[in-house]
Amino acid sequence: MLKDIDLARKMSKSEFRAAEETLTIALGVLQRRASELRVPWIVVFEGWSAAGKGTLINNLILPLDPRGFRVYSRLGTTEEDTFRPFLWKFWVKTPERGRLAVFDRSWYRRVVDLHVETGKATAELRQAYGDIVSFERQLADDGNVIVKFFLHVSREEQRRRLERLRRNPVTAWRVTAEDMAQNKRYKAYRAAVDETLAATDSDFAPWTVVESEDERFATLKIFNTVANALECGIARAENRQAAERGTRKAGGEGAKASAGRPSRRSRTPGEEVMDRLNASVIDRLDLSLALEEAAYRKGLKAKQRQIRDLEHAIYTRRIPVVIVFEGCDAAGKGGCIRRLTQRLDPRGYEVVPVGAPNDLEKAHHYLWRFWTQIPKAGHITIFDRSWYGRVLVERVEGFCGEDEWRRAFREINEMERHMANFGAIVIKFWLHVSPEEQLRRFRERERIAHKRWKITEEDWRNREKWDSYKLAIEEMLCRTSTPSAAWVVVESNCKWYARIKVLDTVIRAIEKRVE
Amino acid sequence: MLKDIDLARKMSKSEFRAAEETLTIALGVLQRRASELRVPWIVVFEGWSAAGKGTLINNLILPLDPRGFRVYSRLGTTEEDTFRPFLWKFWVKTPERGRLAVFDRSWYRRVVDLHVETGKATAELRQAYGDIVSFERQLADDGNVIVKFFLHVSREEQRRRLERLRRNPVTAWRVTAEDMAQNKRYKAYRAAVDETLAATDSDFAPWTVVESEDERFATLKIFNTVANALECGIARAENRQAAERGTRKAGGEGAKASAGRPSRRSRTPGEEVMDRLNASVIDRLDLSLALEEAAYRKGLKAKQRQIRDLEHAIYTRRIPVVIVFEGCDAAGKGGCIRRLTQRLDPRGYEVVPVGAPNDLEKAHHYLWRFWTQIPKAGHITIFDRSWYGRVLVERVEGFCGEDEWRRAFREINEMERHMANFGAIVIKFWLHVSPEEQLRRFRERERIAHKRWKITEEDWRNREKWDSYKLAIEEMLCRTSTPSAAWVVVESNCKWYARIKVLDTVIRAIEKRVE
Repeated sequence: MLKDIDLARKMSKSEFRAAEETLTIALGVLQRRASELRVPWIVVFEGWSAAGKGTLINNLILPLDPRGFRVYSRLGTTEEDTFRPFLWKFWVKTPERGRLAVFDRSWYRRVVDLHVETGKATAELRQAYGDIVSFERQLADDGNVIVKFFLHVSREEQRRRLERLRRNPVTAWRVTAEDMAQNKRYKAYRAAVDETLAATDSDFAPWTVVESEDERFATLKIFNTVANALECGIARAENRQAAERGTRKAGGEGAKASAGRPSRRSRTPGEEVMDRLNASVIDRLDLSLALEEAAYRKGLKAKQRQIRDLEHAIYTRRIPVVIVFEGCDAAGKGGCIRRLTQRLDPRGYEVVPVGAPNDLEKAHHYLWRFWTQIPKAGHITIFDRSWYGRVLVERVEGFCGEDEWRRAFREINEMERHMANFGAIVIKFWLHVSPEEQLRRFRERERIAHKRWKITEEDWRNREKWDSYKLAIEEMLCRTSTPSAAWVVVESNCKWYARIKVLDTVIRAIEKRVE
Repeated sequence: MLKDIDLARKMSKSEFRAAEETLTIALGVLQRRASELRVPWIVVFEGWSAAGKGTLINNLILPLDPRGFRVYSRLGTTEEDTFRPFLWKFWVKTPERGRLAVFDRSWYRRVVDLHVETGKATAELRQAYGDIVSFERQLADDGNVIVKFFLHVSREEQRRRLERLRRNPVTAWRVTAEDMAQNKRYKAYRAAVDETLAATDSDFAPWTVVESEDERFATLKIFNTVANALECGIARAENRQAAERGTRKAGGEGAKASAGRPSRRSRTPGEEVMDRLNASVIDRLDLSLALEEAAYRKGLKAKQRQIRDLEHAIYTRRIPVVIVFEGCDAAGKGGCIRRLTQRLDPRGYEVVPVGAPNDLEKAHHYLWRFWTQIPKAGHITIFDRSWYGRVLVERVEGFCGEDEWRRAFREINEMERHMANFGAIVIKFWLHVSPEEQLRRFRERERIAHKRWKITEEDWRNREKWDSYKLAIEEMLCRTSTPSAAWVVVESNCKWYARIKVLDTVIRAIEKRVE
């Protein structure tokens, strides 16, 4: 997950100023409103050493009324703490109603360190994850707004920063042996963080990874995330109070929110800037990646043979394989699936096309129809679209409520983790084309008679909603890329390149297991 | 937990008839309403072999429209199942909206067996508990009503029943080697069930232990539990629909429910019978247990010396001890605490009297003030009343909402488990006196000048609400008696007996750890 984040995100001074002013004012207003409504809020800062926690926390609290918050800094473990259960020191620091508690390092410090030490999810670690999720759920159920940031910088950037700090006699003391060790074991830490974020991300206390190489960008992302979360919490508190008075505002929690992103207030120019900059995976894709036809033809044959052999290997080893294809309209999902299955033994795989649910499916939990289709051990099931419809089309088109799609990230992760724990290989592709290439393909489909069935009015309508879809796609890629089931984004402007990348990925994933 | 359940509960034919008729009609009405509102419901039957699952399931479905349900019987593990993740075979059998699925054995079979095999909570088992809780939460979030029964019989009764079945040639085939093995290893199974119930009890899918030695009693308890759960689910669905239409019924979910038990419809004579019979711990107490003064004096001295030595032992071993005193008014909590602490080193213990929360405490989560008070490792904290106020006085007096106290059982268990995992010894006393003895003590307090401060108007008012309190106490004892923190009920009509039992319990609990 972390390694797919685009750390080169930057923001110009002028962009920053425009957005900052709006958000600064908004945060002040929200703080006062939270105080009036007695909504407690908690902001957690985790992240790499030298990622800038101190500076960014400072930037966050600057616009706030200092009487309304308290910052708990670098809560190392004291002797007092070791005499009490792990969560004690955090429980006693939870904020009063209407106030903010900022944690510079938090209850996550211990679990990440534990994971790095042991390198795997021990019973102790699982217990700790469970305790943390319970803790956060108890607070959220009590009305707390919980925002959790992981400040992310690359290994190289971290090393540069640590070295700069060490060279300066004034700051050298700030670099500990622990910090240097972290940089040395960056990969082990990253794996531990990935696991921790996946195990503790939830609708009531979601994680936000903040690209922190550019301070301006990081500051605004933090401002924007906190403001949005606080707005939601305030809306919930207002609804609760209204309900207690026997009335209820329309459009609040529980009611079907129309779509896309929360539209609790009108958008401001500052936020427009933020939206444009919020996305972190799609914009960095190199869609010019391509392959010549000759190389494609040659590669295709060899790889299809390889996959047929691997189909046999997973059958004898009784490994189930789940392959999910999602992507933009006209990104070439069908073509990839055909190349993938062309030489497979049909007794060993199945392709499940997923459209709108039928009446029987609608009469069940939205995940039910996928549970009925998961592969037997030793078999491959390929989903042409999937359960991710919940957080894509259903979210954007308002076919489900906001509470429902927010909950879905956790529910989907739980399902995929359950499959992976059973031993399944879970591979998920997002096929991406640029809007220009998509338009070219749409036009081609309209022009060529035998392709015309592929293009509908709906495709054109979806295209117009691209901004909402992009936001949904980014959040999906970020929230559901877990160590047991990571997304692979496929640059698909060149079909040949895309197909080979898909085949390669499947081969590597299976080979890794059957070796 | 299981071993404290009163299995001698019986019901006369006439009592049964009166209640059965009402509940049979109610279940039919509720089934139709659930169908109209498209509320899916799930009833799980777990329990000892030969506890009567088949018969009791039959009794439950008899009043229902057979087009509306499906029974899944004895889902042993087939080869098909082993080829898919554990939850698959249950997911695909979840009911359509408006329909009922009854599971005769369920997803719990595997975890209980796993626990018996290993004898402890392994990482695999913890993972399975987590998967199950996620599964049930996903369904509940989607509107499913989930009722889970554990049918309980004693080891002797089970043996009698199995032998009766074996002697009869017609039924002998029904007794498997597995059934006999279960009877042989009854205690190991009981420990596994206790652990499983504690790990998977929740507000959205609570467990109900059914005393199943008397079929009439068991039948009605099942009817009543299902009817209540279904009513709640239907009320939630109605509120949700009303909310979607922009209006909202008063008194539903989220609103502060007044108290005691859900009062969604008026009580019927059948339910009155059930209520009287629902309680399972208090009524079986032998409150005549007593001790002579001489024996008391002698025992007291010796035991107080023992406890002082143990205080030293836990200090050197850095074991924290949490002792909770709850009980009826005038049951003698204060007297017990004084005898317990009389000879202790005051540097090693603390008594925390718990009253109504102050303003600062009210501004936090209700558990916050207890977190601030938990003992350091090596110390003893005695709570004179405790966090259980949430599910006692706050529930009965309506100081918190129904959703809040329902949630509290899980929250409290989570907190106590966290303490126990840290190594704390958690001891919880419920001091019980009969209403007659309580009255005698109240009168005495009024009569004797230096005791008059102990009795207030509130005590008299509470006494009048005894029925609501009793229900709350029973549910508390049942839902929060976990392997890591079990309740000890102290028969307190004789103060001397009660004090010695308290001292003995504390001594045994600490000795067990420091040996």
